[in-house]
Amino acid sequence: MPESSSVLVGRKPVMNYVLACLTLFHGGAKEVNVKARGRAISRAVDVAEIIRHRFLPDVKIGNINIGTEQIQSSGKAPANISTIEITLVR
Amino acid sequence: MPESSSVLVGRKPVMNYVLACLTLFHGGAKEVNVKARGRAISRAVDVAEIIRHRFLPDVKIGNINIGTEQIQSSGKAPANISTIEITLVR
Repeated sequence: MPESSSVLVGRKPVMNYVLACLTLFHGGAKEVNVKARGRAISRAVDVAEIIRHRFLPDVKIGNINIGTEQIQSSGKAPANISTIEITLVR
Repeated sequence: MPESSSVLVGRKPVMNYVLACLTLFHGGAKEVNVKARGRAISRAVDVAEIIRHRFLPDVKIGNINIGTEQIQSSGKAPANISTIEITLVR
């Protein structure tokens, strides 16, 4: 397993993504990047907070980056969507 | 005006909060803290991104902190809610 892995947070229940991160850490990952776009951003923050407060107190928040992506849908003007990437470090 | 001010992002349209931040910067603020809780977190990221990409290119993202607050509603069990604080620096 690589030392750094990613979990993309979407519309599923928050515990799905918490479990995905826990699985990566238990598999030996030293860093997990929790990523999300648009409205899922608040869920990504929930994932990070639940992991470090409830499951893995030795996990720290590394870096938090925010950004903007341009989404091109067919027949529509391009739209900007915000992104977040939270690095969890064990 | 103090050198550091805060804008609490809630449920109003995102441009309301963008305007609030721009007003603080134009009034001389060197730092503006954009804060939000729960689902408004993604809107706070939108506010920060719109300000630096569309209005004030000299504004940088300083620190980004995430956390958890406990909300006590009458007659309900306490609930945890995630928070974010994005520091914009001019």
